[in-house]
Amino acid sequence: MSRLKGKVVIAQGGGPTAVINQSLVGAVLEARKFPEVTRVWGARHGVRGIIAETFVDLSEATTHNLERVARTPSSALGSTRDKPDAEYCQRIFKVFRRHDVRYFFYIGGNDSSDTVRIVSEHADREGYELRAIHIPKTIDNDLPVNDHCPGYPSAARFVASAFSGVNADLMALPGVYIGVVMGRHAGWLTAAAALARRHDDDGPHLIYVPERPFSIDCYLADIDRAHQQQGRCVVAISEGVWASRDGRGKEIPLAADLMRKAGREPQVDAHGNIQLSGGALADELVDVVRQRLGIKRVRADTFGYLQRSFPGVLSSVDAREAREVGEKAAHYACGRDRSGSVVIKRVGEYAAKYELADLNEIAAQTRRLPDEFLNAGGKGVTEDFRNYLRPLLGDDLPCLERLWAPAVEWGD
Amino acid sequence: MSRLKGKVVIAQGGGPTAVINQSLVGAVLEARKFPEVTRVWGARHGVRGIIAETFVDLSEATTHNLERVARTPSSALGSTRDKPDAEYCQRIFKVFRRHDVRYFFYIGGNDSSDTVRIVSEHADREGYELRAIHIPKTIDNDLPVNDHCPGYPSAARFVASAFSGVNADLMALPGVYIGVVMGRHAGWLTAAAALARRHDDDGPHLIYVPERPFSIDCYLADIDRAHQQQGRCVVAISEGVWASRDGRGKEIPLAADLMRKAGREPQVDAHGNIQLSGGALADELVDVVRQRLGIKRVRADTFGYLQRSFPGVLSSVDAREAREVGEKAAHYACGRDRSGSVVIKRVGEYAAKYELADLNEIAAQTRRLPDEFLNAGGKGVTEDFRNYLRPLLGDDLPCLERLWAPAVEWGD
Repeated sequence: MSRLKGKVVIAQGGGPTAVINQSLVGAVLEARKFPEVTRVWGARHGVRGIIAETFVDLSEATTHNLERVARTPSSALGSTRDKPDAEYCQRIFKVFRRHDVRYFFYIGGNDSSDTVRIVSEHADREGYELRAIHIPKTIDNDLPVNDHCPGYPSAARFVASAFSGVNADLMALPGVYIGVVMGRHAGWLTAAAALARRHDDDGPHLIYVPERPFSIDCYLADIDRAHQQQGRCVVAISEGVWASRDGRGKEIPLAADLMRKAGREPQVDAHGNIQLSGGALADELVDVVRQRLGIKRVRADTFGYLQRSFPGVLSSVDAREAREVGEKAAHYACGRDRSGSVVIKRVGEYAAKYELADLNEIAAQTRRLPDEFLNAGGKGVTEDFRNYLRPLLGDDLPCLERLWAPAVEWGD
Repeated sequence: MSRLKGKVVIAQGGGPTAVINQSLVGAVLEARKFPEVTRVWGARHGVRGIIAETFVDLSEATTHNLERVARTPSSALGSTRDKPDAEYCQRIFKVFRRHDVRYFFYIGGNDSSDTVRIVSEHADREGYELRAIHIPKTIDNDLPVNDHCPGYPSAARFVASAFSGVNADLMALPGVYIGVVMGRHAGWLTAAAALARRHDDDGPHLIYVPERPFSIDCYLADIDRAHQQQGRCVVAISEGVWASRDGRGKEIPLAADLMRKAGREPQVDAHGNIQLSGGALADELVDVVRQRLGIKRVRADTFGYLQRSFPGVLSSVDAREAREVGEKAAHYACGRDRSGSVVIKRVGEYAAKYELADLNEIAAQTRRLPDEFLNAGGKGVTEDFRNYLRPLLGDDLPCLERLWAPAVEWGD
């Protein structure tokens, strides 16, 4: 069987993750093994590097360098927030044709899969043979069809670790603590905070996600109750929580509301997403607890960029799977002449298998936390969610130990 | 030689660290070996637990439990922000006399050492034999006499790791990033960000510490220059930077100034310290760059509580030394009948030795970064500082690798 001869172009899009380079290296090393592949090019800064024709020749990267890059967080080729429209995708296609590119691998989230789909359809219409594969990546864990997305387990491990440390900190110096976690439309990463719990009274005691509307009054009542019961309260909350909708029914993030109140107009990116970063949400959530509940020691952190590319905090399962989805992309495209999106399915407890899904099933969709993962009150997760996430967090999760010593009795 | 027979009381004060329980466990396990020690009691929540007489009997903690507690971040006995005055110390002393406590170990920073000093002097005046030892602990690294303080190297490792991840993140998606690091009066922890640099153009490109006055105009000019040269700029800044002094010459933290401007009155703790936590400083530092330099992608994080008790991010050197200062406390008090503060000295490149210093040398003093550790412009550190910190960060620091592949030439 004679196969398609030509170049590979690989690129990375969207926000970096701790394991995105595993996927890059998996695809590059496997693609280099196919004799039909004349060259493996990497585009600098995602699709932007394709239309600017700024490529590096990954056929000449040493395996030693690549193996070390695989263990380095953040996108080694550079990334972009560009969201290509039809015309942009046509320019991508023209570059591919000019350089005899026959294999296109794009590592990214929802929008990246959409780009792969449009470029692929364009090539079809022009009768140009192109194998286009989307390789999944997102700490948001919001791609459909997948059981979970590479990048998420490592970020989840960061969040769960952070909350177990914070819980220990708050046991030493009691009060209320609020941790604001990334997650615009979906609460997957915030929900991961629940895995910090070991003892019954461990935090987080409350978890708020964008799958449910947020109410300041309920939030205060919840904290008041937890604080009275345990003398402390740890809260995990998504940056994307919302309390109201605009005229067209679109959810308005509370963070954006608060930024406007403070006289700051939040930025809007190419995808129409309102900027949620910054400390306004956390500060407001602290102030309202102090003022209305009269609790003195109230602290908050916004985990921000630390949670997506912290060196050394990663899930061994995530690293392996991110590598494998990259390898599978090369197998599907170069070995089996197919296009699509590599997806992760769960088998047993716990193993993963990989399949190739149709790009139309993935592109521009968002998967939120299903109802069975959120408890009835909507401020915590179920045992089902814990069982879902536990095997993904990887080996050697630090286990925090409490001191077990009897209280001294009087007259001892 | 017949030695002082009686109980040990051990307690932990001030902010938690990643290795503070190593010191606890080192002291407890060693003290339990001395036949003169009738019982080892732990006070819950520092000095507060002493006057409330809420003790746990650490003579009955299993070694297995203690060894696991040693590897757990944050103060296992609980902590307190209480700063005892003479009357409070007298109450501590009375509790000691009532329960025949002859050995007092207090793990903490400057204020804790001061408490040990006052209680010790009180016992002397009363003719009550008490061996009182201060065991050093502070992520601020600001205790005099010590080469460095247990807790600091692990927090420094967190900060250096965070900045190396953020630097990689910003290489993928360029812009300006500002990381706000703990440090009220001293810039030791912020300066640790410098250890994130591997390549010449790695961030942080600018480091601001409270040892020098801070000027917004210089900050903007510095960022503008770095951003024009490299297309990105990573900034590390202490939460305690100040731009002005009050009528009595006291430095006013910029964070407190900004909180007041935003209509929030910052809290003041028992030590007279103004609360610096919250996102106001970071948000303001972002806004001013956007507005006055016209740079679009500007992001900031306040590292907050994550940096002092993140499970799994710790320095192996720090863990060992924290254990040893605890063990030495027991040796000095129970084995050699002495009182004082255990201090770490540096020998060669690199080894540590332990000595017992006079409490008067340590108590209520603050050691700032010396001039030779700050570069001429005051916005970076010297090679001397890097050499000072490098051996303390411990083994297996993650090493971030760049992709080395030749750029594709046209007409390839």
